[in-house]
Amino acid sequence: MEKVYVKDLKKYVNQEISFSGFIDSIRDKKWVMFVILRDNTGKVQMTIEKSEEKNQELLELLSNLTVDSTIKVKGKLIENEAVKLGQMEIIPEKIEVTSKAQNLPFDYNNLEGVNLDTRLDYRWLDLRNEKNGLIRQIESTMVMGMREFLYQNDFIEIHTPKLLGAASESGSEVFEVKYFDRKAYLAQSPQFYKQMAIAAGLSKIFEVAPAFRAENSNTNRHATEFTSFDLEFSYIDSYEDVMNLEEDLLIAGLTKVKELYEEKIKEIFKTEVIIPKKPFPRIKLQDLYQELNKRYNYQIPTEDIGDLNAEAEKLTSKYAMEEYGSEFIFITGFAATKRAFYHMRDKNGELQGYDLIWRGTEITTGAQREHRYEEIVKNAKEKGLGEDVKFYLEFFKYGCPPHGGFAIGVDRLTMLLLQIPTIKETQFLFRGPNRLTP
Amino acid sequence: MEKVYVKDLKKYVNQEISFSGFIDSIRDKKWVMFVILRDNTGKVQMTIEKSEEKNQELLELLSNLTVDSTIKVKGKLIENEAVKLGQMEIIPEKIEVTSKAQNLPFDYNNLEGVNLDTRLDYRWLDLRNEKNGLIRQIESTMVMGMREFLYQNDFIEIHTPKLLGAASESGSEVFEVKYFDRKAYLAQSPQFYKQMAIAAGLSKIFEVAPAFRAENSNTNRHATEFTSFDLEFSYIDSYEDVMNLEEDLLIAGLTKVKELYEEKIKEIFKTEVIIPKKPFPRIKLQDLYQELNKRYNYQIPTEDIGDLNAEAEKLTSKYAMEEYGSEFIFITGFAATKRAFYHMRDKNGELQGYDLIWRGTEITTGAQREHRYEEIVKNAKEKGLGEDVKFYLEFFKYGCPPHGGFAIGVDRLTMLLLQIPTIKETQFLFRGPNRLTP
Repeated sequence: MEKVYVKDLKKYVNQEISFSGFIDSIRDKKWVMFVILRDNTGKVQMTIEKSEEKNQELLELLSNLTVDSTIKVKGKLIENEAVKLGQMEIIPEKIEVTSKAQNLPFDYNNLEGVNLDTRLDYRWLDLRNEKNGLIRQIESTMVMGMREFLYQNDFIEIHTPKLLGAASESGSEVFEVKYFDRKAYLAQSPQFYKQMAIAAGLSKIFEVAPAFRAENSNTNRHATEFTSFDLEFSYIDSYEDVMNLEEDLLIAGLTKVKELYEEKIKEIFKTEVIIPKKPFPRIKLQDLYQELNKRYNYQIPTEDIGDLNAEAEKLTSKYAMEEYGSEFIFITGFAATKRAFYHMRDKNGELQGYDLIWRGTEITTGAQREHRYEEIVKNAKEKGLGEDVKFYLEFFKYGCPPHGGFAIGVDRLTMLLLQIPTIKETQFLFRGPNRLTP
Repeated sequence: MEKVYVKDLKKYVNQEISFSGFIDSIRDKKWVMFVILRDNTGKVQMTIEKSEEKNQELLELLSNLTVDSTIKVKGKLIENEAVKLGQMEIIPEKIEVTSKAQNLPFDYNNLEGVNLDTRLDYRWLDLRNEKNGLIRQIESTMVMGMREFLYQNDFIEIHTPKLLGAASESGSEVFEVKYFDRKAYLAQSPQFYKQMAIAAGLSKIFEVAPAFRAENSNTNRHATEFTSFDLEFSYIDSYEDVMNLEEDLLIAGLTKVKELYEEKIKEIFKTEVIIPKKPFPRIKLQDLYQELNKRYNYQIPTEDIGDLNAEAEKLTSKYAMEEYGSEFIFITGFAATKRAFYHMRDKNGELQGYDLIWRGTEITTGAQREHRYEEIVKNAKEKGLGEDVKFYLEFFKYGCPPHGGFAIGVDRLTMLLLQIPTIKETQFLFRGPNRLTP
């Protein structure tokens, strides 16, 4: 008999069922034993009357069991108005203990006093917390919604190599790998290879894959390994096309999340899923500086001119909400010196790219890319890039259509969506300078 | 005006359109110039009458252009019965050259005489070959079909870390990473972390991600980095449940491919997509040995007893086709000594796992996993595994439901689906002991 999940139990009332799950709690009363069972879709009560002769063996077995052990039950599912949990209960006939839990190091239902490092050391227990389990489901749903949108729009998924022969964009934040008798490097992003696909004539491509950054910094939004949702597409007229696509992509993801988890997100995360309206507001950096100054008396520090910083991003979101009632805002007009060499510039040197801010944090840097061989060679030279990018420059020698794209950090997106304070809680398993375990 | 793709052109007959693409070829006749344009969905003819005064500028521009340059055309799409390519042609009014191609190092339309290493050195040109471009589309479609099946069955996608603190399964084939002032290792598979998810109570999970093997061998089906389609699910009764799920998963992927590419695969790859019937035939290893002996006079070498080898796999497929008319066959009854320690064994020591063979090659090793703490500790010890798997054994201490799963190499699957001789041609960009570029 196939296991029935809690979410489907209603269909089986008054039937014999097979139920498997974790023991969530045991209440041992004088005349009856209540065992709450749990799977990833919910909880259900199992009730054992102590007076019945045939139950003595089951009671014996359960009296030795610990919470979080797993069991498999065969029994009858009956309606019972008195049962708070779904007005039904399982009356077991047979119980098989499938695993026995030792004493847990902490109570995952109440994580408030538990150190985050302890939680990460025992991440598989931490994920048993209802909220943390939900984060995983919701992230998967968000990515599914985005993926489905891209499939519908003729994008194909590619899998670019993470082992590289050169340190590429910049040697400083790249992990080095011992590769037989030579060195390899871990990809910081699939950027170069997304563009290789474009040069190959694959006109709409995306990838969801790990990216690696050897950054020795400990913030709430950085990790040495993270999941990057990357796309690139051909035949654009300007970076406006890229912004338009990103609007549709995010709306598709958020809509899917709202469809399936609107209530849970309100109840458990105390936040709302708001589907943004198109077009998202857009503002030029210079105009933004003026607004931030006028409204919040904020002056961008000299070293950040031509770009934003964390504080400015927060104020930008405040401005977007006040002025446009929008959680999202596109910023354009960044300085070319503050962006990668593959971002396109127009005749006047103006950068053809943007940042997208959501809920106080930058979630994307997107752009039209430089696709003309002479120009990209010039840009690389200007940034002092030599041998390491040589292989990449070759991609543009034999014809390459105009194109653009962007990347979104999946863990960061989830963090903002559910208002989680740190990426350490939204990654399946966080990786940082001091954390490589479990 | 948005670019129209070749596949959608029919809807725009007698309309002004914008078309962008590569120049596929130029035929310069006395009275007329024919330019064949190409995007990733097909080809279309552009026709320029030489006698017309207004065309002189366009002709001048085109006469300087090379094949594989990219252009953007504004013009009218008209019907013309005489045009072989779709019975239509673009009459241009304005042409913009978006990139100019240098002379190509080889003709990607005719790869027969071109060395595979040269092709890989210029992989972005190699992928312009129609067949190679199609491989990318078909692989994406196969994975999409499999993914959709899993989403529909309540699986969620997780993203497990590829940077590990320990060499895990075996130190010998693991890449070592310089991780700040210590060492990290690249994941050979997400196996341990899939199981961590199961222990966390996430009952149905999958992942499509890179896996890394420091194997210094050069075969047609191995790579140092490859894309692994991995899944794991809880509450199974036996590895039969795992085999059943794999049947449905593969049927879903193949069905999607057949829907979209049946004709192209016949025409270009000279092979057929055959949707297998359930259940796939199943045979025990000992019975298989007898059949191979009886039918093909094949004797398994002593060192391979308890397992298969490449030759035996080929014969097994032959047997499956002759006996069952099936391209797929499950083999069970492998020796526990020939499989990883996390595969479950029954009371009699019999391995609760299987291999799946398709078209002469093993595509999956799947199994019910050992989920009982005492048993998995014993199995690890038996295989001589110590410190490196200690963190993994912890996952089973606090309750863990029965579960099973498998992995499929995406590149290998594509290779068998399209009957491509080597994985070097089915990976987006091959990585091997001697190849880290481009």
